[in-house]
Amino acid sequence: MTYDLKSLPSREVFPGFMGKFIHGTTMTFAYWDIKQGSTVPEHSHVHEQVVNMLEGEFELTIDGLPHRLQPGMVFTIPSHVKHAGRAITSCKILDVFSPVRQDYQ
Amino acid sequence: MTYDLKSLPSREVFPGFMGKFIHGTTMTFAYWDIKQGSTVPEHSHVHEQVVNMLEGEFELTIDGLPHRLQPGMVFTIPSHVKHAGRAITSCKILDVFSPVRQDYQ
Repeated sequence: MTYDLKSLPSREVFPGFMGKFIHGTTMTFAYWDIKQGSTVPEHSHVHEQVVNMLEGEFELTIDGLPHRLQPGMVFTIPSHVKHAGRAITSCKILDVFSPVRQDYQ
Repeated sequence: MTYDLKSLPSREVFPGFMGKFIHGTTMTFAYWDIKQGSTVPEHSHVHEQVVNMLEGEFELTIDGLPHRLQPGMVFTIPSHVKHAGRAITSCKILDVFSPVRQDYQ
């Protein structure tokens, strides 16, 4: 199935986090456009998550330890590991989850 | 776990297809740099595959039907569906597979 990100609708899932979503059978793709200073509080989920840093800078805190992500960096977050985030600048991120995130349908 | 694509080694998996690979627990990420005119013959695999077109143009043929992929397009290929490809121009593609591709380890 083909998707064009340019024409896919986006929605604000957390304040400042605009997301476009594509769901396969085993994975969910979340294309984020994030406003500078926006934060996501610490949380965890059963899904493995792979963060692809596309543009800007983002502070990803894993188990209380901060990591500064820049373009070209990729971060794998195992299932059930606690994480939080903060957009240091406006940024674009592709998060991929497996299994599918039913809450982003 | 953090990865920096700039310092990750790449290898030529098919002629003209240079790939960098990141393996999680449930997914494999393949970052391709493909030379114009390079082709991958028709094949299929158990893994679901999601093609993210980053730069250039690529002809993806699914079950004999060609699709012209341009930047910003995303294509989901279900498990066991036959597909082939040809780089119309030099291009960059992110392919994500689930489960992990043991043959790309």
